Amino acid sequence: MSTQDPGTDVWLDRLFRNARSQNGYRPEPVADEVLARLYDLVKMGPTSTNCSPARFLFVRGAEAKQKLLACVAPPNVPKITQAPVTVVIGMDLGFVDTLPRLFPHMDVRPMYAGKDEFIRATAFRNSSLQGGYLIMAARALGLDCGPMSGFDPGKVDEAFWAGTTVRTNFLCTLGHGDPAKIFPRHPRLGFDEACQLL
Amino acid sequence: MSTQDPGTDVWLDRLFRNARSQNGYRPEPVADEVLARLYDLVKMGPTSTNCSPARFLFVRGAEAKQKLLACVAPPNVPKITQAPVTVVIGMDLGFVDTLPRLFPHMDVRPMYAGKDEFIRATAFRNSSLQGGYLIMAARALGLDCGPMSGFDPGKVDEAFWAGTTVRTNFLCTLGHGDPAKIFPRHPRLGFDEACQLL
Repeated sequence: MSTQDPGTDVWLDRLFRNARSQNGYRPEPVADEVLARLYDLVKMGPTSTNCSPARFLFVRGAEAKQKLLACVAPPNVPKITQAPVTVVIGMDLGFVDTLPRLFPHMDVRPMYAGKDEFIRATAFRNSSLQGGYLIMAARALGLDCGPMSGFDPGKVDEAFWAGTTVRTNFLCTLGHGDPAKIFPRHPRLGFDEACQLL
Repeated sequence: MSTQDPGTDVWLDRLFRNARSQNGYRPEPVADEVLARLYDLVKMGPTSTNCSPARFLFVRGAEAKQKLLACVAPPNVPKITQAPVTVVIGMDLGFVDTLPRLFPHMDVRPMYAGKDEFIRATAFRNSSLQGGYLIMAARALGLDCGPMSGFDPGKVDEAFWAGTTVRTNFLCTLGHGDPAKIFPRHPRLGFDEACQLL
């Protein structure tokens, strides 16, 4: 491909340059089929030994939303209340059990056996990568996002993942954003501050 | 926007459905200006309190490449050797010092003060998200990627970040992939295995 392809600027704007974190949402719902399309994109993104540790709870109903609201920092209450969907992105610390199916040509379980810290770091890194793919895929499907880490992870674990090997990584609202609620764009680090050419 | 916009399928294929992790590369180089364009997209992706902890070393030259090769698992040697660029994605544990500039409307430093574990988790989660944005932005610019976590993090830290507050998160080759070296696509978890509608 060429970066001069028609539509390149439209897509770079949509995914990166004009996309903004949302603080409020318009009332339009997000259909189940859109969430299915979203996952079908997210799941294709690369993870280490295809370990795919992310788990996604799509919180929409009143009861689940109230449970979630009881676990978050006050500034995040209004946006979760308004958003048609809030995704709880979890990481399954039991991902090693799925590897014979997800990475069938080689038994990589010995790489992880008995290494709890390595398992935890792998689940955290890769579920975060998958969270990044979720944000990009949502924007590609015309949804707006509001990622958040202001919540009590122990409370969310207890409310949503009790009795499982899944732990909460972060939250992300999804929907059609209210442009009036967007904050001014914050500055970014320059290339020379964040990058080196070696 | 509508998901029926012209070009949607081309872009969803390019970013998610047809994009593949690379194991070999064609010899075409990647120009410095492409790396600058890449960072200009990546930097726009959202991070918690705009903390932007990721740091990127673009390893191209023979000396830097040899230093990196001495730190990686044997299966990753050929792809790093062939790739025109390997990015070392680091996380700056000193990101709190940049917050007065990156999040100027509120002093959020007290949120982090004295909380080393929280700082570390924030740097790890958000630099991983930024690594996910890097993969998507590279694909959007027509580059292929090969993300890797098979390396000795202590050795990479020592070789590239000595005397700094940056620690290595993961590596990612960039360039124009050799389709002959791609592995068959691995299976993915189904929607009902990874997701719940609540």
